[in-house]
Formats: sequence, structure tokens, C-alpha cells
Amino acid sequence: MDTIHEPGKEEIISAAERIRPYIHRTPVLTCSAIDEIAGARIFFKCENLQKAGAFKSRGAVNAVFSYDPYDIKQGVATHSSGNHAAALARAAQLKHIPAYIVMPENSSKVKVAAVKTYGGRITFCLPTLEAREEKLNEVLSETNAFEIHPYNNYAVIAGQATAALELIEDYTDLDVIIAPVGGGGLLSGTALASHYFSPLTHVIGAEPSGADDAYQSFYQKKLIPSFNPDTIADGLRTSLGSLTFPIIRQLVSDILTVNDQATIEAMKLVWERMKIIIEPSSAVALAIVLKHKHRFEGQRIGIIISGGNVDLMHLPWL
Amino acid sequence: MDTIHEPGKEEIISAAERIRPYIHRTPVLTCSAIDEIAGARIFFKCENLQKAGAFKSRGAVNAVFSYDPYDIKQGVATHSSGNHAAALARAAQLKHIPAYIVMPENSSKVKVAAVKTYGGRITFCLPTLEAREEKLNEVLSETNAFEIHPYNNYAVIAGQATAALELIEDYTDLDVIIAPVGGGGLLSGTALASHYFSPLTHVIGAEPSGADDAYQSFYQKKLIPSFNPDTIADGLRTSLGSLTFPIIRQLVSDILTVNDQATIEAMKLVWERMKIIIEPSSAVALAIVLKHKHRFEGQRIGIIISGGNVDLMHLPWL
Repeated sequence: MDTIHEPGKEEIISAAERIRPYIHRTPVLTCSAIDEIAGARIFFKCENLQKAGAFKSRGAVNAVFSYDPYDIKQGVATHSSGNHAAALARAAQLKHIPAYIVMPENSSKVKVAAVKTYGGRITFCLPTLEAREEKLNEVLSETNAFEIHPYNNYAVIAGQATAALELIEDYTDLDVIIAPVGGGGLLSGTALASHYFSPLTHVIGAEPSGADDAYQSFYQKKLIPSFNPDTIADGLRTSLGSLTFPIIRQLVSDILTVNDQATIEAMKLVWERMKIIIEPSSAVALAIVLKHKHRFEGQRIGIIISGGNVDLMHLPWL
Repeated sequence: MDTIHEPGKEEIISAAERIRPYIHRTPVLTCSAIDEIAGARIFFKCENLQKAGAFKSRGAVNAVFSYDPYDIKQGVATHSSGNHAAALARAAQLKHIPAYIVMPENSSKVKVAAVKTYGGRITFCLPTLEAREEKLNEVLSETNAFEIHPYNNYAVIAGQATAALELIEDYTDLDVIIAPVGGGGLLSGTALASHYFSPLTHVIGAEPSGADDAYQSFYQKKLIPSFNPDTIADGLRTSLGSLTFPIIRQLVSDILTVNDQATIEAMKLVWERMKIIIEPSSAVALAIVLKHKHRFEGQRIGIIISGGNVDLMHLPWL
């Protein structure tokens, strides 16, 4: 196996130190009722309790705080309909620079409000990837802002890796860590953290079957983008990136998929039994453990709960 | 001021040691967004993340594990429509003795299911206090079980005190701790813990205006039971007890009330911003802080989040 050089072990350690003042060290929760159902011992790393409600705060803060202040003095920019948008706006606010966020015009009100809370400057566009990229290019050339991609960025990946690093610091003997996979920032960071700091722990990606580009790419050994993704897990509709896929291909043990019905059931189970609010994207990992009970039976499993940003007026089981 | 002798300081320390193997040391969470709204620094002691979803597990375990095994070998019993029922069933299961629970026939399905999960033996009765007490007496004489009252019991009070004890261990310099008040087990325990372990911290009771017997009793200096309580905070409809009232009268600084609309708004705010599920009874304390902003401005406030048992099919804002 080739050595992965970027981001390296030291970059992840630096990221953890750099972001520490600006993020929560989130708790790791357990639930005996869910352990009993799963027949395993599960350690939930609760990034839903993270600043801005998702692990995305780690990568965004690490990126904004690791770049040369001169390079980003005109601000930072991204296109995102989701948690990266709010996380980047918050990180920029901490650094007292503007954040320009291109959002599709059909973005949920809750997510638009979150970006505004942190002072993000929103430009709306048509809800297609093409329109988003075009509008972002306009914004970049108008503002001279620095683009910070939601996942295809090594500083972002190093930041996301710190969630698994903390989990590994708390529990040294996990058999496996499962993280959801959309663009692959969290999964590649988790795989790197495990590779460097807990090499006996396997890392598995959890993906909705309605947006299984990572599964397809992993097994066909080439990058295959999502085509018309259809899943309730809104954070996982994006496709792997050119930087995240090679890390995942090399360091992840497997990608498993599950349908939305199982994801909604797992989500409700966590709400009911653990009393924490997790978004559908976060429930995919638990749904996979419950679907593959024999595979995970008796194991010590870390699950990264990626976020808790849900529209409380529209719950998927109502 | 007379010295309160029961439960004493040592009894609370013993309770903490006794229950430690059977309960979670719950996290204390903070939320900068809510702090900003409140103009204060709030430390949420998250008993919604406790075993069986509420602080009631503390008192129930302490009672069941502190009595002479001979006295309770026929089992324990109580009447309760709520969290004490599940907590007592769980505590009895840990001790391998039966738990007989008298529940009003209109109890929520969720709460009935929780009691059954822990092997509780349920007898249904008419939904009046008289019917509940009559049925419980029948059950007690049939089974020779030992009654463990939800709050009017010193072992239960000492158990509930351990939530505030842990909060005080984590944060030594709180100006005030606010706990919801129904029967007064949590509030009297909180007041005792503060009195013994953080005597400069004030303790305030939070009560719904539609069930303000504690407020009335506190200011009229005599026990005045609830009459037709009307509040969404289902855990707080009960009246103070003969054991809890004297402690509250002596050691609590104030009782404040708030209407259900403000409670529902505070509940939704916590769900949205903190990503944790709290029940209406738990939201009363935050609602009071937001209602009395000037009174609490700039203070370091502990809030005991009492529980998270909510019917997810019926949310109060939908």
C-alpha cells in the first residue's frame, strides 16, 4: 500500500490544535437499548452537538484559520445548500472576513436562516450543479474571495479528521468506525485518522442506496459521479471528489448502502431512545449496523453522527 | 435558619456512590446561540440523556438499592403515569425484584411501553388521584410489595440531589441553579445539594403558571395542593409533598412561573439550537430565564434538564 502523504499525520494534529478554541469537543454517547437491538456496543460521536450543528465546523474553521490571512482578506466563498454553508459563514465571522455563499433558490428556510445568523452573504442561483458553479465563479471574480470547497480541499479533510481523532482518543479499541459518505470529506478524514492513530480499526462508509456513487466508485475502482440522486439524506447527495476518492479507495475497508425507509427508522430510534436530534444523513450509519447485524455482532463500533440540522416542522415519520 | 437533617450531606454522597454503576454521569452542554438570546451563560445538566430518559432513574435506583433487601424482596410498587414508573421498573429489574406500577388508563402509549420494556407489571386504574391511591393500596396488600413514592421519600430525594451535585462538581461558581418543580423531589434535592456543596449558589424553582401550587405554597407558607392543573408540562402537574415542601421552603430562593406558550417556544429553541430532545417540563426553566432576562442578565446559570420523554408523533408546535 502506498503511503498517503496528504493530509499527513502532523497536519491532522495541527488541525486539532488550531480549531480547539472554536469548536466543541463533542461527547461520545452510548445507549444500552440500541446496543441490545444491534447486538453490539456502539459509541456515537455526537457532531450533531457541534458548533453550527455539524462536523462541517471542523473543516471550515481549519481551512479559514490555516490559510495565509493575506490570501483570504477579501473573504471566502463556496456553493452549498447545507451544513458547510453555515459552518463556513461562522468560521469567516470568527476571522472577521466576509463569507460569500451561493445557495440554490430552493434551499430550506432553516439552512438559509443559519447562514444569515453567522453573517454569510448569500447569492441565490438555480438548483443545478452547473448554475451553482457558474454563479460561484461570478462571485469569486467580483469579490476576489478565496474558494473553500466543502470537501475537495485538504485543509477541510484534515479538519473533518479531528472528529475521529477525538473518538479514538476516548476509545482506543474500536473494531470499526462508520461514517456517512457524500462528497467524502468526513469519510476520508475518518479513514486518515484511523490509519494514523488506530491502524487496527476498520473504517466503513455508509451511503444511501439512492445516492450510491461512493459504493459504485469504490467497487469499480474509478470515480463515478451521482446521477439523479434520490434520498432523504440531503447531506449525502453529492459525489466523491478527486481528492477524497483516492484516500477512500486506499484506506476504507468497505462501503455499505441502505434504503431510506431503514434510515428513517434508525433516525426515529435515536431520537426516541437517545434523546438527541440527528439528521437523516447521520442515521444512515446506524441503519447499516442494524441491517448487517451478523457482520457487526459483538463488535465495538464507533459511529460519527454527522449533524443535527433538521426542519422540525417537517419530520420524515409524520 | 434551622439545619436540615434529612437527607444529610453524607446521604447524598452515599447516594452518588451507590447509583454510580447504574446511571449515566450526564454531560453538561452549553449553547452560545441561546446564551446570546438570554444574555447569560447557561449550563444545561442533561438528564434527558439519563437512563430511562429522565433524572427519575437516580432516585429510583437509590431507593431500591439502599433499602434492606429483605424489606423489598416481594418487590416495589408505585402509582405514576410518567417517568418515575419507568425508572422504578428499571431499578427493580437491576435488583431482580418485581415492580408493580399502577398507571391511569389514559397514560400515553409511549410511557406504558417504557414501563413494559423494563419488565414492570402494570395495573391500570381510573385517572384520578383517589383511584390511583386506592388501586395502589390493593396492589400493596396483594403483593406485599414496598411502596416507593415518586418524590415524598428521602431516599428518592437524595438520589435526585445527585444531578445537581454532579453539576456543582463540574462548575463550582454558578450564581443560580434552576430546576422544574412538580412534586418537588428534584427541586428539594437540588436545593440540598446546593446548600451542602455550593452554598453561595441560589436555587430557583420553575413552575408552569397552570399548575402553580409550589408558587402558591411557597408564598403563602403552607402546603396548597394543585387544583385542576392545566399545563402541557405533564411532569409538573403533581403537588408538593409533606417531605419536599419544608426543604423547598427553607432552602429555595424563589419560585417563578411561566405560561405554556413560552414553554413550547423554549422547548423548540433547545431542539433547534442544541439538537437535544427535551420534554415540556424541562423547557419551563429556560422559558423562565428568557422571561426574566433582566433578573438573570450576565449570570452563570445551571439548568437541570429533567427529561426527554416526548411522543414524537405529537409535537406541541405542529
